[in-house]
Parts: sequence; C-alpha cells; structure tokens
Amino acid sequence: MTKKHNIILQPSGSRGQVEEGTSIRSAARDLGVEIESICAENATCGKCMVLIEEGRFEKYNIDSRREHVSPVTNEEAAYFARRPKLLKDKGWEVGQVRLSCQCKIRGDVLINVPEESRGNKQIVRKSATQREIEVKPSIRKYLVSMSPPTLERPIADWERLAKGLETSMALVRGTEEKLPRWHELSIDYQCLRTLSSTLREAKWNVTVSVWQDKEVVQVQAGYHEDSYGAAVDIGSTTVALYLCNLRTGEVLAAESEMNPQIVYGEDVMSRIQYTIEHPDGLEKLHKAIISTLNKLLKQATHTAKIKTSEILEMVLVGNSTMHHLLLNLNPKDLGLAPFVPAIHSSVDVKARELGLHINSAGNIHVLPTIASFVGADTSAMLLAEEPHKQDENWLLIDVGTNAELVLGNSKRLVCTSTPTGPALEGAHVEYGMRAAPGAIERVHINEQTLEPKYKIVGEGNWNEGKAKGICGSAIIDAVAELFRAGIVDSRGKFKTGLESNRIRKGESGWEYVIAWAEETSIGRDIPMTQQDVRQIQLAKAALFTAARTLLKRSGLESPDKIILAGGFGSYIDKEKAMLIGLIPDCILENVYAVGNAAGDGARIALLNVEKRREIESVTRKVERFELPTDPEFQNQFMLATSFPHMSEPFPHIAHLIPNRVADPMAKNFMK
Amino acid sequence: MTKKHNIILQPSGSRGQVEEGTSIRSAARDLGVEIESICAENATCGKCMVLIEEGRFEKYNIDSRREHVSPVTNEEAAYFARRPKLLKDKGWEVGQVRLSCQCKIRGDVLINVPEESRGNKQIVRKSATQREIEVKPSIRKYLVSMSPPTLERPIADWERLAKGLETSMALVRGTEEKLPRWHELSIDYQCLRTLSSTLREAKWNVTVSVWQDKEVVQVQAGYHEDSYGAAVDIGSTTVALYLCNLRTGEVLAAESEMNPQIVYGEDVMSRIQYTIEHPDGLEKLHKAIISTLNKLLKQATHTAKIKTSEILEMVLVGNSTMHHLLLNLNPKDLGLAPFVPAIHSSVDVKARELGLHINSAGNIHVLPTIASFVGADTSAMLLAEEPHKQDENWLLIDVGTNAELVLGNSKRLVCTSTPTGPALEGAHVEYGMRAAPGAIERVHINEQTLEPKYKIVGEGNWNEGKAKGICGSAIIDAVAELFRAGIVDSRGKFKTGLESNRIRKGESGWEYVIAWAEETSIGRDIPMTQQDVRQIQLAKAALFTAARTLLKRSGLESPDKIILAGGFGSYIDKEKAMLIGLIPDCILENVYAVGNAAGDGARIALLNVEKRREIESVTRKVERFELPTDPEFQNQFMLATSFPHMSEPFPHIAHLIPNRVADPMAKNFMK
Repeated sequence: MTKKHNIILQPSGSRGQVEEGTSIRSAARDLGVEIESICAENATCGKCMVLIEEGRFEKYNIDSRREHVSPVTNEEAAYFARRPKLLKDKGWEVGQVRLSCQCKIRGDVLINVPEESRGNKQIVRKSATQREIEVKPSIRKYLVSMSPPTLERPIADWERLAKGLETSMALVRGTEEKLPRWHELSIDYQCLRTLSSTLREAKWNVTVSVWQDKEVVQVQAGYHEDSYGAAVDIGSTTVALYLCNLRTGEVLAAESEMNPQIVYGEDVMSRIQYTIEHPDGLEKLHKAIISTLNKLLKQATHTAKIKTSEILEMVLVGNSTMHHLLLNLNPKDLGLAPFVPAIHSSVDVKARELGLHINSAGNIHVLPTIASFVGADTSAMLLAEEPHKQDENWLLIDVGTNAELVLGNSKRLVCTSTPTGPALEGAHVEYGMRAAPGAIERVHINEQTLEPKYKIVGEGNWNEGKAKGICGSAIIDAVAELFRAGIVDSRGKFKTGLESNRIRKGESGWEYVIAWAEETSIGRDIPMTQQDVRQIQLAKAALFTAARTLLKRSGLESPDKIILAGGFGSYIDKEKAMLIGLIPDCILENVYAVGNAAGDGARIALLNVEKRREIESVTRKVERFELPTDPEFQNQFMLATSFPHMSEPFPHIAHLIPNRVADPMAKNFMK
Repeated sequence: MTKKHNIILQPSGSRGQVEEGTSIRSAARDLGVEIESICAENATCGKCMVLIEEGRFEKYNIDSRREHVSPVTNEEAAYFARRPKLLKDKGWEVGQVRLSCQCKIRGDVLINVPEESRGNKQIVRKSATQREIEVKPSIRKYLVSMSPPTLERPIADWERLAKGLETSMALVRGTEEKLPRWHELSIDYQCLRTLSSTLREAKWNVTVSVWQDKEVVQVQAGYHEDSYGAAVDIGSTTVALYLCNLRTGEVLAAESEMNPQIVYGEDVMSRIQYTIEHPDGLEKLHKAIISTLNKLLKQATHTAKIKTSEILEMVLVGNSTMHHLLLNLNPKDLGLAPFVPAIHSSVDVKARELGLHINSAGNIHVLPTIASFVGADTSAMLLAEEPHKQDENWLLIDVGTNAELVLGNSKRLVCTSTPTGPALEGAHVEYGMRAAPGAIERVHINEQTLEPKYKIVGEGNWNEGKAKGICGSAIIDAVAELFRAGIVDSRGKFKTGLESNRIRKGESGWEYVIAWAEETSIGRDIPMTQQDVRQIQLAKAALFTAARTLLKRSGLESPDKIILAGGFGSYIDKEKAMLIGLIPDCILENVYAVGNAAGDGARIALLNVEKRREIESVTRKVERFELPTDPEFQNQFMLATSFPHMSEPFPHIAHLIPNRVADPMAKNFMK
C-alpha cells in the first residue's frame, strides 16, 4: 500500500491525506483547491507556483519541511533562474517556492497557494456599478508539445495536435470537467490551412486557442499566455469599443467614434428609410459600420501594442436597427408595421464572413434582441444589471430617441419600447445642443424672484462662462423649475401676468429667458419656449405611459427601484425628472443612473461565456408588450402629458408640486 | 372513455386497437408502420396516400368499410382533383384512396399502404456490385406554414420559422425521434440574410431544408419536394461527378472531365513538387480543380434541368494529394519524409469558403484520409465494400500509379500503400497506351507455336482491327503469356534459342513482337520488350510485397477474398494477374473487380449521413503499416520480382506455371 501524508493548503485551510508521490497540483485539486496551469504541467508557464512553509504548525498538528517534497527539478531551477526579479520582488527563494506541477509529496507539508496561482480567480470590477465579472472566456489557451512525426508514426498533423490537446486540456482543467475527446474537437478551416507550417516552424511546441472547448481557432508557435477580445456597443450616434485581455479581463484600450451611418439619417427610422429607398442602401450602411469597427480595432490594437490577428472574439450589442445593419440584414420589415426583426436569438458568425479585421477564425457574437425595438443593447443592459436575479421589482429604462423599458424580477420580466422623440437629447428644442463645452447643464429658478441661475459644462461655478445652448439635463431642469416656480401650469402652459422681464411673448409664443444675450457666446437671448415645453411633455408622456403600462400588466403600483441607463440617464437630476413625471414615482434614493450599461453588458458577455447562455435564456422569457396595441394607450398618454401627471399621486415629490389642481381641460392641452 | 377500433395495415399485417378520431397516419405510427409525409400534415404533399379496403376479411375477423373513416375533406378532394392522371393510372377512386394525415378512424378498417407511401423505403442499387443504399440524406425538407406577424405578435422571422419548423419536424418524423427544440435549431448566416424577404414573398408558406437535423440551409417559397447533392471522385487523371436526388437517391447526371492539374504534373508527386517550387503553385492547382468542379456542376445541373443553388451538399473523395489540393492545404509535408498529411478526419466546410458553385449555405463533406498515401478514396472504397462488416478476411486493392491496400474483417483492418509506377497503366511501357480505340486489350500466346492472338478495344473478334499500342490489361496478359509459354523465365529474362521470328534482339535488348507493322495503324511492329517486362516485375513486386506484409502482420496465409477496385482492376484477367504474382494466391472465384468503388462510396456517403459517421469511426481504427520501415521489405521485394514469386506456392494457378525452378540468382535479376 502506498504511504499517505497530511497536507494543508493555505489560505483556504483545505486539508487531507494524499498518496506519496502525488504532485502538489493534483493533490490540491483532489482537495478542491484549483491551482492555475496553462503549459500542461511542463514547468514552463509558472502559473502554478506555491510556497512550501517550514516549521511546526501546532494549530494543525503538523511538521512541514522542504525535505518533505521532492527536490527541485532541473526544469524548475531553469524556470526560476530566468526570473531573478520575481524572486527578489517577492522575497522568495527557490526550494521555498516550487512549481506545483513538478513538486511531489513525500511527507507532511503545509503549502501556501499565493493569490496569483489560484484558479478561477479572475474578477474584473465594472467601473460604473462596481459589479464583479468572473472571467470565463470562450477562448482558452493550452500549450501543446508533440513528438515530431516519424516514418513509423506519420499520423496527420491535426490528429497529432488534437491528441496532444486532449492531454493538455485534461491536465490544465482536471479530468472531472466534461471535456471533449480528441476526435470530438474540430479546427476552423482557415486555421487548418496554416497548421502544417506552424507546427514545423514551432518545432512541435505550440499554444492552441480553443473556442468554447470545441473548436481550435488559433495555433501559435511557442508559448503565449494572453488572448484578446473586443466588446462593442454600437449606438445610433456613437460606437464604443473596449479591447480586453481575455485571461485577466483587463480593459487594454477603449476607443470610440461617431457612427458613420449618421450621414444617411440621424435616427434609426431615417436609416431604415434610406435602405428602402436606395438599392445599395443596406450595403452602404453595412460597410460604413464595418469600416468604423475596423478603424476602432486598429486604434485599440495600436494602443495595446498587439496585432489584430491576436483578437479571437468580438461581442457586439446595439439596438435592433444597428443589429440588422451590422449583420447586413435588411431592416425593411423592422421599419414597417408590424415592425418585425429578422432574428431574436444571438448570432455567432466568423469574423471573415463580416469582413471584420480580427483573426479570420475569430467568432463574432451578437447578443439577442428581445422585441421589435428592444434590441441587443437592452439584452446587454439586463446582463449588466441582472433584474432577473432580484426579488424586488426593478424598472430599467434606457432613454434615447427611442426608450426601452424592462420591468420585473426573478419571477417575471416584461418589456416595451416607445419613441420619445429627440427632445430629451436636446434636438428639436430651440436652443438645444449636445452636452459639450458652452452647454447649460443645470438650471435653477428662484420661485420668489423668478430669476434663474445656471451651470455651464466645463465651468466650476454657477452663472460662470458664456452659454451657447441648453443640453438635455438642463432642459429637464428648466421644465421642472418652470413648473415648480409656477411659471408654467400643470398642463405645461405659460401663466400670464407674472412679474418678471424673463417671461415674454416671443416669435412663437410665450417663453422664459434663461440667459441674456450678453451672458452668451452667441449674442442672443437663450429662452425656453412654450414649444420646447410641449416637446418635453410629449416625450415624457410617452416614457411614462410605457412605464405605467408595464407596471399595470405586472399588477404593480410602483417599482422598488428605477435604473436609468445610457448617457442621458447619468446626467439628469432624478428629482426634477420625477417632478415633471418623466419617470414613475419611487423613493428617490432608489433611482440609480448606471451609465453605459449596454457597453458593460457587452464586456460581461465577452469575458464570461456562461453569461451568454444566461442572457439567451432570460431574453427568451421576457414578455413583450406593444404599446400601440394597448386599448388604453391614447387615453393614458393624454393623462401623462400633465406635470407630473393628471391622475397619479407622486407622493415622493409631492412637496415640490405647486398648487396641484386637477384640470379637466388637460386633454385639450395641445390646442 | 373514448371508443376504440380495430385497424389492420397491409402489406405488413400490423394490427391493433386505436382510439376513435385518430388519423390513419398517426395510428399507423403507433403500430410501428411509418407513412411518408413532408407537408407537416397539411394535405398538400400527397406522400401519405393510403387505400381503404372494403369488405369482410374473415382471416382477420374484421368488417372494413369506407364509412368507417371520416368523410373526404375539401383539402383531400382538392388534392385529388388536381391529379386525375394518378387516379386513372392506378385505378383508384377518391374515397378508396385517402390522405392518411386527414382521414380519421371511426370504425374497424383494413388499410393498404402502397409502396410509395411507406416510410424509410428509399433504396438505391449500386450498378456495379448490386449493393443497396438506404437513403438517409443529411438534408431533409419540411413544409412550414406560419401565421403572418401582427402588431400583437411581432415575433422575429427566424423564431417564427423555427417554431413552425419544430412542429413540422415532429409531425413528419414522429415525436419518438430525438429532434431539436426550436431554440436548438440554427440558421446559416447567408441563409438568414434572405430569410425576411423569402418569407414575405412566400406569404409565410415555405419549404425549409435542414442539414443534419440542426441547421437551416435553405428556405424556398412554396412547396418543394426534392433537394439535390453531388458526389465526386477526384482522381489524379479523371474527375467524376454524380448529381443525385437526395430524396430518391436517383442519379440524375454523371459527368466527368480530365483533372486539369495534369498540366502541372502527371503523378501526385510531381504536382506536390510543383507546389514546392512555385510560390503560387498551390493556389493554381487548387483553383484548377475548383473550376473543373464548377464546370461539372454546371453541366450536370444543365442535364438534370435544375439550378446549382438547389444543390445543398457535395461529398468528395480523392487520394491524399487530391484531398489537400481540393482543400487548399499545402501538400508539401505529404511529399517529404515522413509524408504526413494535414488531417485524417473528415472535413465539413461551407461551399462558399471553397468557391464551389452550389447553394452558398451548402456543405462540402470530404471523407477522411487513413494514412499518408491511403486517402479519402480508400475510405470511400471501404464504405462501398464494407470489409469491416465481414467475418472473412478481405483484401481490397485499389491499383493505380500508387496502390492502396486494406486487409481484414470486422475485428481488425490493416492498410498500407505502395508506389507501383506507371507501368500498370501503360505508361513507361514502350507501346503502352490508355484503354482507347486501337489499344490491344487482350493477348494470348500459343505455347506450341509461340504465335500470339490479340483483341483490340472496340473490336468484336480476336486479331481484328488495326493495333496502335498496348493498354494495361494486355500488358499483364502479355507478360503472363510470355511466362506461361516459356518465352521468359521465372526471373523475367527472355530465353534464347527458341524457334520463333517473333522473338528477336531489338534496339534495347530482347523482345517479342505481338503485332507486325502491317497489322497496326502506326506502321511499326508492336513488341513487348525485356524492359517492359522489367517494369511490370517492379510494379507487381511492390504490390505483392505490400499485400504479403499486411497478411503477415495479420497472421494470415492468404485472403478469403480479393477485391480489385478502380478502372484497372475491372479490365485485367485475374488468372493472368495471379500467374505473374501481381496479387496473392486465392481461390480465383473469390477475386472480384468492383469498378469505381471510390465513386460508389462517395455516393453512399452523400445519400446516407449515418454512413459518414460509420466510415469516420472505421478509418480511425484501421492500423497503418508503412512499408519502407519494415525491416524485411527489401528482401521480400526482391523475392517478389520472380514470376509468380520466388518462395510462395500459388497453388491456385500452379497448373499454369511452366517448369517451376528455384533460382538462386533471382536477387541479381536487374543486372
């Protein structure tokens, strides 16, 4: 019978008896402690370093000695000899530190597994919401060393590689995991084409990148540790790309560009229209986004100092129209009633089929779409925020020219979308502009004097700098303040007879001057007009009605939490948004802005392949409601044009509402 | 409780009780009788026709009446009204003949299922060996009728199709079969691109072609019954394509062309050499074969009056070099020791990746290779001949410039290959030529008079017509006859002093004149020279040694059966072949020529997807022997140069051997 020894693994404290001669790495695995390895236990990757502690450990009743393990091998000595800096920085000496794949147990030992050697440890913090991402990429790399073919054993290159790979996968991952046998593995056709020459150049020592534990997509000469991927959020206006290290999860470069399709139409409907009216329209829009993605890939790889061929996967998200144009799918039927997308399911397609300049065998993964206008960006938002894992009912809103809303919890999720028009983004508002230098971003009106103060983007103090226009957040502010100060009534109409030179009859009706000409860089007064207020009323009524419909369908009065995604949501004052009835009533502390949740979701799907399966299954279960088919929609919409609403209580901002009156004429407000 | 009725199905005689209201088709399935259907029980395909027999059937104690089933539906009436000819030809009347998917059981009935309605019935006879092929193609077609999307149900096109397809698959195939759920189905990316427009053009009635029960590769408007595939044997000299109906197995067109690569080198080694010496060599050779395949596809579809886009799959076979050049894999390492191919496993790749002009979503399946020079053509031969299903030991030989040999039975298969040189195909023989008009194809020599008689290709009688040269089969004949008649000895040397003006000293040594100048169309004597005999000795020694090595490794004295594949094998006289020791000794009746077994195998793999899995697993188990590494090879080879052999008994043709003598000088025969 083989002798057994006591071993203890720190810091986990796992302990047990293992047979003499077992390597520390496999002993650890038997005790449930994963130690990293990528070189198939060849003493070359150094990922499996452990420390042999010396001394008598009373707590565990164990004597641990370096002599209780096999002597340092030549391979280990060579490995550490090449890394004097590592030993110096850590204060380790060879013999104390060992490669656990080489070091065999011969007596009782206490072993310390340093942080960097622990398996499945990669965690990336999302900048915005501090959620942790476990790194489980679709791409894994294995070092495979083969004996060269001989006249006696002239087995084909692929089978030689596949058999070596089977062994490496089992060594690195452990035999308990369900891994494919060599003949169940496949190799991408283009990758196969260069296999024979690579194996020979590499003298039969290669690093093999395997996609989804089944398909070989890259074979590199020698030892390579890292592989790379890109997560992309294709917005109608902006395209943002994150280049990530697929092993560590680290973001190596973040690049963004304007969406070049903007020259064919500012919003999604006009782009769809362009493809309908021009025979080559789809091709043009598709090529435009592909070439921008290729430009971003080039920039990002330049920043990170890697080759584009080292990028082995891309995950992309975008609204349904962006999704169709990316995939070269005709969006015509998305633009015509009943507004049907070509596909909801996620799409996996080879990079070379789309002409994307990453490794030609690389996979392009596009997240699922949920409904006609609830696209892959919403799927990404769900992945980032995870309402499907909550007990509480969360309302997620991505506000843009089109707003997507999802409500629910782990039991049920419902979604809808509504066009809100461009007013919330500053367009179609007389002095509206993007949140750029010179834009008024905050407005406050003194309800006694009716005098405003404002803050300009890039300025530290209120009323400082020269104003050029009003951006989205200040538009919300201004409308809310006009209402709160009693300058416009709950129906959105300017009250007359108020004592202020700021309130005047302009060219197109009543208006309130926020900045006088001399305070601006454009030499003209910047007012908020009756028309501007009307635009905001329409937008917020649409959004509110959508939210109310979802709440009603779910049998809820109000959500437990409201999450505002997208750039717009990050800048608006949530109290003001609630005061004008842009969002339903809710405890103010439970309203959160989460920034680019779609981009975060894309990154999560890139770094964790299990999350893709999760979101695929979640999106299949989301119930879709189409607002225009709701019989009450028109009526609800009209009630919602009032501030904050014709028939909703809004207890959490009630104190801000001036002289609340029910106004039976509200229905006629547009007249 | 629902009423039950007795039903009997003929001709199988299956009987049982079924619930009132069950359709005949599903009742039949419950009783284990498959009835065809392709339209998902929509009364449109007519594949499920059955006959309701009338009368009292004493044998079964049953009263069968047309009134015992539901009345003819409008759909059935419409179906038969469009097919008066069918009814007339068959002598059926409506009411007697019914669509079993529509017709419900309401009482006891005896039902006749005509041949054409029986499921899984397709069988194709192979012309050469009369083996039957069960048709189980990788492509199956389903009619899917969907309700169009509405504002209330604007589910995406792909999901709508996939859900309809799930239902159709279950109806056509029966729920006992393990079929994918809708969300487990996928659609080829290029097929997805045109999905939305096809569905709308088709008014939501489409025929969907599914590959391997998992991937949608074609969506056609309306109802289509047939799909097509092509099986191709790429020989070094000739490329043969068979266009098949994948539903019936029928061969609709057979086309062949010279392999255009011949201009870059006559044999495989010189083509490999060309790719090594020319930087664009591989690309040229690859493009040459692809363009020939496209030409053959065009010709075949023209003959069959179908479109190339209706071809949904191709199966290709060829020797290892042809395999590499087809797949654009560098054959360099196949041409240099240790002669390693890039891959053994079968390859599946989209037609568009290779530029083959079938449906762009179509699959290209290339059968597995077995060893360095035992290629996909040998895999196809195994599939056609099935030695792996035998108890007897079969020896399969594909003779060409390179010969591949497989020996064994269901327990063990061994293989090897050997270069035989071009002599057996008529090259490097002074008056050698292909088996074309004017070629001598048979030779007989009277052992008394030493006078020959010969038969020319295309002529009915011996010694008729004008000779132009000698083709492979006559070369074997001539050598065997020279030996049998005692003109050359067992070492292959011309004997001197024989009384015949046919035997003379020519320019390059002794020779025997088969045809005098006046009997030829070239005006020159056609002799068989000493040099020609030597060429044949080398070729047959190589082949014999290979066979003997396999027999020895398998512990066998002789094979139970010898199968000669390829054109060459079909024309040679097996007795003569054995007399010169080209093939091992065996009962002559057990030597078979099977023609183009590689082409048959390609067709089997095209028509039956299970056969692909079978051959993949068989080829993985075949043991490979590399002759040059056999220590006895040189010695065995020298012994085998004698007629029939220096040290083998050859009992089955012993009576033909003249004055058999052991000749200790045989080793020096080439001097």
